[in-house]
Amino acid sequence: MELKTLSEIDIISASTSKINQVDFENLTFGNVFTDHMLVCDFENGAWQKPVIKPYEPFMIDPSAKVFHYGQAIFEGMKAYKDTHDDVWLFRPDENFHRFNKSASRMAMPEVPEDVFMGGLHKLLEIEKNWVKKGKGNTLYIRPFMIATGHGVIAAPSSEYRFMIILSPARAYYSGEVKVIIAEHFSRAANGGIGAAKAAGNYSAQFYPTKLANEKGFQQIIWTDDATHTKLEEAGTMNVFFRINDTLFTAPTSERILDGVTRKSVIELAKRENINVEVRSVLVDELIAAAKDGSLKEIFGAGTAAVINPIVGFSYKDTYYELPKIENSMALEIKEKLTNIQYKLAEDTFGWTVKI
Amino acid sequence: MELKTLSEIDIISASTSKINQVDFENLTFGNVFTDHMLVCDFENGAWQKPVIKPYEPFMIDPSAKVFHYGQAIFEGMKAYKDTHDDVWLFRPDENFHRFNKSASRMAMPEVPEDVFMGGLHKLLEIEKNWVKKGKGNTLYIRPFMIATGHGVIAAPSSEYRFMIILSPARAYYSGEVKVIIAEHFSRAANGGIGAAKAAGNYSAQFYPTKLANEKGFQQIIWTDDATHTKLEEAGTMNVFFRINDTLFTAPTSERILDGVTRKSVIELAKRENINVEVRSVLVDELIAAAKDGSLKEIFGAGTAAVINPIVGFSYKDTYYELPKIENSMALEIKEKLTNIQYKLAEDTFGWTVKI
Ligand SMILES: Cc1ncc(COP(=O)(O)O)c(C=O)c1O
Ligand SMILES: Cc1ncc(COP(=O)(O)O)c(C=O)c1O
Repeated sequence: MELKTLSEIDIISASTSKINQVDFENLTFGNVFTDHMLVCDFENGAWQKPVIKPYEPFMIDPSAKVFHYGQAIFEGMKAYKDTHDDVWLFRPDENFHRFNKSASRMAMPEVPEDVFMGGLHKLLEIEKNWVKKGKGNTLYIRPFMIATGHGVIAAPSSEYRFMIILSPARAYYSGEVKVIIAEHFSRAANGGIGAAKAAGNYSAQFYPTKLANEKGFQQIIWTDDATHTKLEEAGTMNVFFRINDTLFTAPTSERILDGVTRKSVIELAKRENINVEVRSVLVDELIAAAKDGSLKEIFGAGTAAVINPIVGFSYKDTYYELPKIENSMALEIKEKLTNIQYKLAEDTFGWTVKI
Repeated sequence: MELKTLSEIDIISASTSKINQVDFENLTFGNVFTDHMLVCDFENGAWQKPVIKPYEPFMIDPSAKVFHYGQAIFEGMKAYKDTHDDVWLFRPDENFHRFNKSASRMAMPEVPEDVFMGGLHKLLEIEKNWVKKGKGNTLYIRPFMIATGHGVIAAPSSEYRFMIILSPARAYYSGEVKVIIAEHFSRAANGGIGAAKAAGNYSAQFYPTKLANEKGFQQIIWTDDATHTKLEEAGTMNVFFRINDTLFTAPTSERILDGVTRKSVIELAKRENINVEVRSVLVDELIAAAKDGSLKEIFGAGTAAVINPIVGFSYKDTYYELPKIENSMALEIKEKLTNIQYKLAEDTFGWTVKI
């Protein structure tokens, strides 16, 4: 895929850079931002001219619909630097299309490709020094759109703001990740917005996740809300279960985000002749497999967390520790995936796009 | 209930008032705001001193969590003016408690009573000229809280802003209201946030509601997401069904907002010796009752919409028109309810609170 460049864009450069104040070895995920951001407003039924300008707070009306009705969506992507100092994106077309799918579900206007992709391209050219070399170093990219129209009536906004902000990032989770299987709380409804990267899906998980954290678990694996019998996904990752030598992951649906990492893992695993079955794993199956020793691995897959091995899970107050194994599929796939992302291995899939 | 007054509050008065520019006879719901607003920030684990200041836009960081994760809640209340120019609230304690219930579910800090109630009291004293006399005229009150903390990591914010803004309002719906019964889309999950007035619940409904609007229907009556067989509530109203001379309404649950108007209607109806049954009505029952003529009325109940008669509904592309009846329970209850709110009838329940 070729990135479109944007001809019509205003650029206002920051007078100084914050880059020397940043300790790139000790980053907390998502709390340092680069010098510039992209802003593009939707007004009078049309997208206006985008602008790249210094990263800074902006003015917004107290009655803006994003505050009252949560009309907001986002994406999460990363830029990687190879050994030649070139900057790469990983399957950005997937994020672009998913962004506009989310927009439709939330009754928001689609963002044109030249604004999203062209704007991102330009912004990354300006901020390329913020992408550090070396595996594990990335520049996290956060495109998002909020409803800026005024008025406390529950109806779609007529004004929107699309923005891209950038944050240098290393690991999302530090340390071991243990999960709880959801027994009562849920993330998404049938016929709801679970498949969209809609803002409201995330805060809905904060309270149950806080309860899990208090018990010493980092994340929840969500189950279907009707029966709580089918394993679905985690808060910001799709989930894979390795039973014997087969990898299982739930099919995407209205309730489950169609993750880019998930689909890449499936394709990579197939290339490596790993057996992958896309079907819902039942909680009962998981417990049985944990008990009889056929459950070898569980891992999460997502842009922020990359491939995240899960060391154990809790269900109905029983904790099931996963075995320590030698030939971890999670680590093998992570290695293959990150080698493609950092251009350390040939990209036979055509997933990487140069800035 | 006594309203607490706030001793510790800063007040910055607007230099001029916009009130003379407002056409109070022709108001669109929720798009004109009064001269002042209340603002109170939560920082370093504590609520700071609240301030009443001119209504105006404010600065916020692009990475504020409200934009990315939808951590935001609100309430909807109204102030009414009686014939003696006194201003009244209707069951404000219910809104205050529900607000803090919503806060807990969204992992946000509870707002203290002196900030919420005391602040509202003070704000209404200042803005009392915006409450117009005469039935149908109200000042709509929108308390809300947003996550203002920075950072694109999906976890609760550590900073919040609580605000109250006020908007003079008349009817929420103008004209007849027809509804569609949800067959595919849903508003809330079991174990989800449907019972909270969380921002994300509302934008989730925009797209399905837009589809309904395009077919000539104003609202959707949501059904349970697992089976779509039980009638639950509408987007901003609880729903009552009159079959013969009994009123039915769904029990509140994790999926259904515990509406103040709903509970007031139940109490009022009981006082009037109307038979009320709090149980889920099945879609099949509704269709059968519409066909055999026992379905007399459907109405929505909510602060914004008050009591809103529904003239017909559509299910599986068949439209069922409700009969035009003489002794409408909806209109009788609306009359009784609004008489209490405007102090035109004795408030035997102790629901009204004077400012
Ligand atoms: C709910 C949810 N599931 C899964 C994922 C993983 O998706 P991706 O691999 O595209 O980052 C994410 C993160 O983007 C997410 O928010
Ligand atoms: C989803 C929902 N249901 C019902 C209601 C009615 O509640 P109340 O009568 O408290 O306004 C509202 C509005 O507040 C609502 O948002």
